[in-house]
Amino acid sequence: MSSAVEPIQTLAVKLSMLPGIGSKTAVRLAYHILEMPEESARELARAIENAREKVHFCSVCGNYTDAELCSVCADPTRTGELVCVVENARDITAMEKMREFHGRYHVLGGVISPMDGIGPGDIRIKELQTRIAEEGITEVIIATNPDVEGEATATYISRLLKPFGVRVTRIAHGIPIGGNLEYVDEMTLYKAIEGRREL
Amino acid sequence: MSSAVEPIQTLAVKLSMLPGIGSKTAVRLAYHILEMPEESARELARAIENAREKVHFCSVCGNYTDAELCSVCADPTRTGELVCVVENARDITAMEKMREFHGRYHVLGGVISPMDGIGPGDIRIKELQTRIAEEGITEVIIATNPDVEGEATATYISRLLKPFGVRVTRIAHGIPIGGNLEYVDEMTLYKAIEGRREL
Repeated sequence: MSSAVEPIQTLAVKLSMLPGIGSKTAVRLAYHILEMPEESARELARAIENAREKVHFCSVCGNYTDAELCSVCADPTRTGELVCVVENARDITAMEKMREFHGRYHVLGGVISPMDGIGPGDIRIKELQTRIAEEGITEVIIATNPDVEGEATATYISRLLKPFGVRVTRIAHGIPIGGNLEYVDEMTLYKAIEGRREL
Repeated sequence: MSSAVEPIQTLAVKLSMLPGIGSKTAVRLAYHILEMPEESARELARAIENAREKVHFCSVCGNYTDAELCSVCADPTRTGELVCVVENARDITAMEKMREFHGRYHVLGGVISPMDGIGPGDIRIKELQTRIAEEGITEVIIATNPDVEGEATATYISRLLKPFGVRVTRIAHGIPIGGNLEYVDEMTLYKAIEGRREL
């Protein structure tokens, strides 16, 4: 009865799995893709596969990269003394947009969350300890999000790192509580870095 | 200086070419795709390529299909006497959702628009004439959109078809003026079909 065409429906279903794409938008996008020049559609498909194939985590900090080291770790002009600890690789993009942080990063790949069964061993805390022992790090800025898990993770890490004799600071609460590092404007982020306090 | 990773940026740029996807949303989607299970990302890419490869236009009516004939033209229970002329294949989806139209379709693939250099020879009017001469069509409902080009195209076709002795009707203006067939609710569309008038 219906004029449903299977490959269009499949495409719409796959598109609707993306965040913020409802089923109506997915159908519109699917039709748009059908009407795009064939080469453009193929380039979009290839960009998806290429991103998944080429992009992996930096072997040092856990940032996204298509090389062995990410562009931050590979940059000799950046100080290795200052390390900013973030929850996700995406948070680095937000920090870099600010253009005021010249240190390096360490991506935890999550936060401690007993409710979700995520303990300290499930995020990259051991790797951070190794870096502090091996690199000349003098200060660790903890920039996890200001929610319950982010605060708990910050406190846990600060206690753990005290014996290493490094300065452990917490990004200031210039970030609105309940907000997310990824969506904060550059000025707020700058204030948050500036007003960081000792833990 | 920036931590930009080329395959992520390329993916975001390609995604931002889709309608309604701004550059910020495109970056969010790109990161989401990176965090999807690898197989899901590959399935999305494949769905895009598959839709572009498999889907083409029905050789009779111009509807989307992955077979020789679309599901409407291939359906023997539908009457071939009544043909609804639409601008785009997408409009058929809207008509079919209504579930009250049991005829067939003819997709023009556009409307006459001298401003855009589109004349009667650039849309599938000749194919419609051939169908009227060959198939047992008794009524043609013109369901182009109620804008300047859609009205002009409807008038042009009705004049052209008069000598064939077929009834030529125009979908009623139950559709809000300035609106688009694709986004109209099923009830409005039903009223528009019901109140169709002779041209």
